[in-house]
Amino acid sequence: MTAGRRRSERSSARRTQATVLPPDGRKRVVIEAVTPEIDGGRFPARRVVGETVTVEAGVFGDGHDALAAALLFRHERSRQWTTVPMTALVNDRWRGEFPVTELGRYVYTVEAWVDHFGTWSRQLAKRLAAGQDVKVELEAGARMVEAASQRADGAARDAARLATLSKALREGKADVDENAIELVRRYAERDVTPYGRQLEVLVEPVKARYSTWYELFPRSVGKLRDVERLLPQIASMGFDVLYLPPIHPIGHSHRKGANNQPAKPGEPGSPWAIGSEEGGHKSVAPELGTLADFRRLVKAAAQQNVDVALDIAFQCSPDHPYTREHPEWFKHRPDGSIQYAENPPKKYEDIYPFDFETEHWRELWQELLSIFLFWAEQGVRVFRVDNPHTKPFPFWEWAIAELRRAYPEVILLSEAFTRPKVMYRLAKLGFSQSYTYFAWRNTAYELYQYFTELAQPPVREFFRPNLWPNTPDILTEYLQTGGRPAFQARLILAATLGANYGIYGPPYEALEARARESGSEEYLDSEKYQVRDWKPDEAMRELITIVNRIRRDNPALQTDRGLRFHFAENEQLLAYSKSTPDNANVVLTVVNVDPHHVQRGWVHLPLEELGIERDRPFQAHELISGARFLWAGERNYVEINPHSMPGQIFRFRRRVRSEHDFEYFL
Amino acid sequence: MTAGRRRSERSSARRTQATVLPPDGRKRVVIEAVTPEIDGGRFPARRVVGETVTVEAGVFGDGHDALAAALLFRHERSRQWTTVPMTALVNDRWRGEFPVTELGRYVYTVEAWVDHFGTWSRQLAKRLAAGQDVKVELEAGARMVEAASQRADGAARDAARLATLSKALREGKADVDENAIELVRRYAERDVTPYGRQLEVLVEPVKARYSTWYELFPRSVGKLRDVERLLPQIASMGFDVLYLPPIHPIGHSHRKGANNQPAKPGEPGSPWAIGSEEGGHKSVAPELGTLADFRRLVKAAAQQNVDVALDIAFQCSPDHPYTREHPEWFKHRPDGSIQYAENPPKKYEDIYPFDFETEHWRELWQELLSIFLFWAEQGVRVFRVDNPHTKPFPFWEWAIAELRRAYPEVILLSEAFTRPKVMYRLAKLGFSQSYTYFAWRNTAYELYQYFTELAQPPVREFFRPNLWPNTPDILTEYLQTGGRPAFQARLILAATLGANYGIYGPPYEALEARARESGSEEYLDSEKYQVRDWKPDEAMRELITIVNRIRRDNPALQTDRGLRFHFAENEQLLAYSKSTPDNANVVLTVVNVDPHHVQRGWVHLPLEELGIERDRPFQAHELISGARFLWAGERNYVEINPHSMPGQIFRFRRRVRSEHDFEYFL
Repeated sequence: MTAGRRRSERSSARRTQATVLPPDGRKRVVIEAVTPEIDGGRFPARRVVGETVTVEAGVFGDGHDALAAALLFRHERSRQWTTVPMTALVNDRWRGEFPVTELGRYVYTVEAWVDHFGTWSRQLAKRLAAGQDVKVELEAGARMVEAASQRADGAARDAARLATLSKALREGKADVDENAIELVRRYAERDVTPYGRQLEVLVEPVKARYSTWYELFPRSVGKLRDVERLLPQIASMGFDVLYLPPIHPIGHSHRKGANNQPAKPGEPGSPWAIGSEEGGHKSVAPELGTLADFRRLVKAAAQQNVDVALDIAFQCSPDHPYTREHPEWFKHRPDGSIQYAENPPKKYEDIYPFDFETEHWRELWQELLSIFLFWAEQGVRVFRVDNPHTKPFPFWEWAIAELRRAYPEVILLSEAFTRPKVMYRLAKLGFSQSYTYFAWRNTAYELYQYFTELAQPPVREFFRPNLWPNTPDILTEYLQTGGRPAFQARLILAATLGANYGIYGPPYEALEARARESGSEEYLDSEKYQVRDWKPDEAMRELITIVNRIRRDNPALQTDRGLRFHFAENEQLLAYSKSTPDNANVVLTVVNVDPHHVQRGWVHLPLEELGIERDRPFQAHELISGARFLWAGERNYVEINPHSMPGQIFRFRRRVRSEHDFEYFL
Repeated sequence: MTAGRRRSERSSARRTQATVLPPDGRKRVVIEAVTPEIDGGRFPARRVVGETVTVEAGVFGDGHDALAAALLFRHERSRQWTTVPMTALVNDRWRGEFPVTELGRYVYTVEAWVDHFGTWSRQLAKRLAAGQDVKVELEAGARMVEAASQRADGAARDAARLATLSKALREGKADVDENAIELVRRYAERDVTPYGRQLEVLVEPVKARYSTWYELFPRSVGKLRDVERLLPQIASMGFDVLYLPPIHPIGHSHRKGANNQPAKPGEPGSPWAIGSEEGGHKSVAPELGTLADFRRLVKAAAQQNVDVALDIAFQCSPDHPYTREHPEWFKHRPDGSIQYAENPPKKYEDIYPFDFETEHWRELWQELLSIFLFWAEQGVRVFRVDNPHTKPFPFWEWAIAELRRAYPEVILLSEAFTRPKVMYRLAKLGFSQSYTYFAWRNTAYELYQYFTELAQPPVREFFRPNLWPNTPDILTEYLQTGGRPAFQARLILAATLGANYGIYGPPYEALEARARESGSEEYLDSEKYQVRDWKPDEAMRELITIVNRIRRDNPALQTDRGLRFHFAENEQLLAYSKSTPDNANVVLTVVNVDPHHVQRGWVHLPLEELGIERDRPFQAHELISGARFLWAGERNYVEINPHSMPGQIFRFRRRVRSEHDFEYFL
């Protein structure tokens, strides 16, 4: 550095604010990069009842001393921490875990300290191995044991054992076993370094992780009482959530008719144009029945392990009571009228959005929360939330927390078909599940990429995908053009890639593929605007039933944690497996994403990772057809004709014994 | 969910702590994932004077409104924030940047808000394009302009312009230009969402990023006065830091002699056994000269743009004055003696480490800091710190901050050859540069992997590698067995992969390759324990001089930011380039890492990324030999004979004109 340069750089040399000594400079251990930790602890990780939280942290100190680390956790309602020792992995990474058994939030953190007695005993072993005189070291050890003994005065038996140990060390007995080390550790002085942040995990019902949704428009069935009669059919097909579009009175002003044209007299209107003189978000449309009918439906469904999911769409028709009782909750145009929804130049004059920038936002928030609470009081525990990304994030964080405070078992599905960061944010804020881009990921490579992204940390720690091959708004080009094989392939993909999936059922079962116009994803004669009568395709219905039974029988398919993609020597074949952590259940799915042609190829399996012995044949049991194949080695041949069945789901079975040239598999 | 299951899950259904409404639920914008941000803002990012800090953030809101975001920054000594607008990239990511011109810390943060007038004007354009009647919208716009105008009352001219604008809108003039939008934006009400964290960047001298180190043992030269006479030679070879091992009095007790044997009478001992009755860490060993001689050396060096770097080794010989004056700073064995250094079963009885767990740690810390300050007062601005990873992290954070408070221009090199997390932590705590694993990365693939890791965020934001092919402790097997080509290759690699590099000079120039024993990295007759007389290899010395001149002439080599590796069709060839952000300076290095055989192959260059026109030939000027090659296209052939020169450094030159079949290059 030249003198000249130094002068110019010294312009800032005058003393700035003094750096104070830290309160305890002897805390020598560092804890960093704890996982799971979402946005620096701003949001909770997510689990369901019965799962395990595996916590890792970087833990290290200066020098070469032995360290110890512990994971601390408690349920939010408990003030008592439970401590679990962490164990060192490689590269200064440590791991511990705890089970979550109750709904609500658990708090966890990490602490670590220098393990002086551990250091001493590790060094003693090396000295002994080198044949050194350890007299002085044994005395040092004895003093450490004595100090621990003094801290053990509340536990007379331990204190006595420690006294015996220190005596033995003084007598030159150098064989200190692991039990003794553990005992000393328990009472040794710990200058603990805390991680400094308390992290959280939100525990939800199992159904937040594994659920099977069926959507239908009640009015096409008849009244709510008629829907009730459909329940056995829906349950027997393997669905456990019945999702109903809004069931509230529908507005008249600017009502939409068939194919989104202005309604003619007698047309029923869109269920999302909520509110009329007959009521708003807390009312049942008279044409569907009464609130009592609805409660009855919820109860009847629960008896079949089906949850009725209600659609929460925070918007109003111009006829909604709110528009008269609370005009201050809406934006007004300079001419005094309420501002309708628009995406310029498009106008949606049948819909008034709420103005979340109103000065009366507190009252608005409370009212919207009360809608959730009202339906929860009617027995609803699952909500599908319409377009949450057009309402402020702080609202959702508050409203969902409030709802969970009263009903910790609620499950909320976010219908946010929007940009990735926004979808992820809504999940972080509290939504249990989220719609995804699945419907538009059709090639094998696109599916591989997208589901790999979703399976990575930190996304997998807070975002639970719920896969829908269709919705009332989405009839993809793939379904429009692919015929029955397309419907079958997308069903198999949704049900095996996603532990949560759903279908907009009646048109899916009916293989409805007609769009309103070319290039559009809108259904022709969409049920959003008119009553439809659907004729199910029996083969499709049977496949749905079989696939849902496969999901029920195979725990690997009930979580997204164990997903792995496998290389297939054909880019039209997508191969992936899911397995339970112990590999007791391993399920391989292979889908031909080309709905038109037979595709064949070799699929590569990482046998060790899947818990399959390398040197023996194993049985691949195809669960849709029931066929059993004997496979061997890493590469196995698959041929899929989409016109018979576009996907295959294999469960691997290990050979347990072999008799008279006949093999028995588990 | 069955009724039964629901009951058991409801065990936690009683109300827990109430969730309060946020203070302002109308703040609708989210700011997340700001970069650079190290460990959630716990540590500053690092820059040098004259660089730019490019800040990115995820910024998004609910709905479809236009947003605006700003980057705010200030020097720590200023209370005045400067605001820079951020611009949207893709996928809700925004970017802004600011220059850092002064040493010390800058503070920065991000804020964002809904841009209502921007939303209005964007929508207006769409309405106009669709030919809609915009009368009501113009009135809404006029009202927004009026509101802005009222807030502009301190700026009469702007207020007048705004009044004109609102009048024009009322008159139906819908052509609002960008200037007008900007003006309204300036005064429009902003409901700003702050990021919530203030992040820091520590700005150091340019030499923290780009430096060329030469290490020598003064006693092998003679006295400090003799070292002074070597300065022109060292400077002319292109070095700008002269690093001296400890220059303090050396202890007698358990002194080490040649080849780490007990010293015989007259042997000089290891410079790292610091302290005798002649003084400690603030004294100059009499055999080297006086403190005045040292100050003279520092001053003479500065005149040649050379910094003298001192070795700070916080440990004592048994004869150090501290052992008598402050026995409380050392650990004591049960027999009352001071605990010597050891790595059981090895003992280092000539060294006493400090006991950082002493109750008197505050006094110890202050004394150790005073050592840095003492030498800074003698003019030292560059310190090489010995084994910082065996002293507590909190000490370094405090001591370095204190030192920088007095001398913001100091540069500290961390000699922590230890595990990755520990090395990174020391860098985060304040060290300017760090030794690396470079010496042990010898294959092309290892080098590619390691330097790719170091070039990734966040590592590159806080960790500045300083590459040493050798040190007094490290004579690698590669150098022991590779002959002159090995020394040349490692020099070229260090100097071009690292903007900071250094050599333990005299034995490197002498091609010293003899280890004390097979399998050891210790030098035979190591200069650590004895005086040596070195004979430089003139070819080696010339290469060093040339390579350092190439570094000086090519700004791309003065930073590690622009490093890219390139595919070479030969695994013994490592190819990489560095370029300035504007591609005005692009340097490609190709090294044959096999010191024994000629290697040849095609090197692939991403022409666009390097700013090279695809369709024209370009000149590759090899800077060591001066040869000029005409290359064309992405693949270019390289052949390297390690016995003539194991590496080539190309500067790309663009053709500026062509005359009479003769091409001129820039």
